[in-house]
Amino acid sequence: MSKTAKRIAIQGWPGANHEIAAKAYFEDENIEVVPCLTFPDLFDTLKQDRDCYGIIAIENTLVGSLLPNYTMLKDSDLVIIGEYKLRIKHQFLALPGQSIEEIKEVYSHPMAIAQCEAFFKNYPHIKLIESEDTALSAKRIADEQLKGVGAIASELAGEMYELETLAKNIETNKKNFTRFLIISDRGKTENDELLEQNKINKSSIVFSLPHEEGSLSKILTILAFYNINLTKIQSLPIVGQEWEYLFYVDLTFTDYKRYLQSLDAIRPLTKKLKSLGEYASGKQSYPVHNGDIETAHSN
Amino acid sequence: MSKTAKRIAIQGWPGANHEIAAKAYFEDENIEVVPCLTFPDLFDTLKQDRDCYGIIAIENTLVGSLLPNYTMLKDSDLVIIGEYKLRIKHQFLALPGQSIEEIKEVYSHPMAIAQCEAFFKNYPHIKLIESEDTALSAKRIADEQLKGVGAIASELAGEMYELETLAKNIETNKKNFTRFLIISDRGKTENDELLEQNKINKSSIVFSLPHEEGSLSKILTILAFYNINLTKIQSLPIVGQEWEYLFYVDLTFTDYKRYLQSLDAIRPLTKKLKSLGEYASGKQSYPVHNGDIETAHSN
Repeated sequence: MSKTAKRIAIQGWPGANHEIAAKAYFEDENIEVVPCLTFPDLFDTLKQDRDCYGIIAIENTLVGSLLPNYTMLKDSDLVIIGEYKLRIKHQFLALPGQSIEEIKEVYSHPMAIAQCEAFFKNYPHIKLIESEDTALSAKRIADEQLKGVGAIASELAGEMYELETLAKNIETNKKNFTRFLIISDRGKTENDELLEQNKINKSSIVFSLPHEEGSLSKILTILAFYNINLTKIQSLPIVGQEWEYLFYVDLTFTDYKRYLQSLDAIRPLTKKLKSLGEYASGKQSYPVHNGDIETAHSN
Repeated sequence: MSKTAKRIAIQGWPGANHEIAAKAYFEDENIEVVPCLTFPDLFDTLKQDRDCYGIIAIENTLVGSLLPNYTMLKDSDLVIIGEYKLRIKHQFLALPGQSIEEIKEVYSHPMAIAQCEAFFKNYPHIKLIESEDTALSAKRIADEQLKGVGAIASELAGEMYELETLAKNIETNKKNFTRFLIISDRGKTENDELLEQNKINKSSIVFSLPHEEGSLSKILTILAFYNINLTKIQSLPIVGQEWEYLFYVDLTFTDYKRYLQSLDAIRPLTKKLKSLGEYASGKQSYPVHNGDIETAHSN
């Protein structure tokens, strides 16, 4: 690795959950965050800046898979080089010195708003307004010194933009995790390093199958014969092609060679089989203590 | 059936997509819509009013499955008695006689806002504000005669609340479909009628499996031996129980008895296998013409 900072494109503004996940994933490395307002922007950034890494949310325990991200990943020439699971927490932030009663409007990303709706039911005087990003909503309050305005954003955003936390961890569901994928154009180099260290034990693949009895069962049976385990499967109808289905599957394995052989074994029975990346399975980032759940990187 | 109107609980206000789907599904029947602001409200309504039917969105081609609805359905004693697929269209509505330039704020459900963001990028002077419901946003404009305020809602809502359409079909993705489930406490009676008519050919089941190599492949192989087809499969990790996975699977079949036998055959290998309902597969509601897609009920 070079000594210059690794550039990591994140969706959202500095202080967004994507930055938190990026910092946790790259831990002690020197990273420089490249903010992208939307996921398509992030994919464009990576297309132009081949040395830049990216981090994208791919699924969430409450809302499921982020299908548009799967589609963009499938259609790109980027590969997954790692994953990170983050427990999602939301803070109610505003300029210092105000009470909740003084806040008339709260801005945040629609997903964050949805996850905190129960909390705001107690404050019917507050109007919830959608914005492009959690952290950007916090930044705007600080930049424009907006009184009477709040944001739902991360603790990191609160610190970065020097806002006060009016209420802590206001998310309704305390078991809400988002899984992030780290993607890169230079996957192969990274992969080689990981392969040498025998760390690659997971893969994400996509393929389509004809809508025929037993077509999926054959694929899974072959994978089982090769001792390949499934950690996720999701089917998607292809609109306008009702006779064909798309499948996103995550696999884990102990023997990398066996895994490659298993792909060769299922390929003739599938259409458009593609590996989206081979990587080291993410750390167990949420040990459970007495019913409460914290990420490994909090406390 | 009695001659009094069938009560159908919908999520959303009259004029919401749930009402459009309910009217399309029950076609010539005399129905009375019972509006429920949220999905939990709808489940509560059905718990108290045992004669009432319900209709819930369960998956959408853009955002995937509505996992919280799956969870509530699984945990309830309601059953699916039918399904309907609706092409989602959004209209930009306001009080008559205004131009887009005069509109300063647009209210709608976060999902509808997300689906029309590309359109509103051309009108940066408009603030997009989240509300509880598409149709309710339209109703409020009419009730309070709000000038300078718009709503994203259905054509039906525009007609019901006598609003003008400032822009038609402003949704970004023209291939966006939502699948709705019709649910009922009295599923068994309905089922008996359908069974007699040999119309039952689909089922939605849920089960969990130990996180073991090949556990899913065994289940699918048995289903294939029984000539049961899969039209959907989705795995879900169970937070806090990383050794177990939940699966939601939709099955289609031609022989109802064989289907029941196949469930008996897989039951010992699964945990908590439950049928969420057996029903007649929904009409193909979106024939494809020259790349454009319309629902069967629109011209």
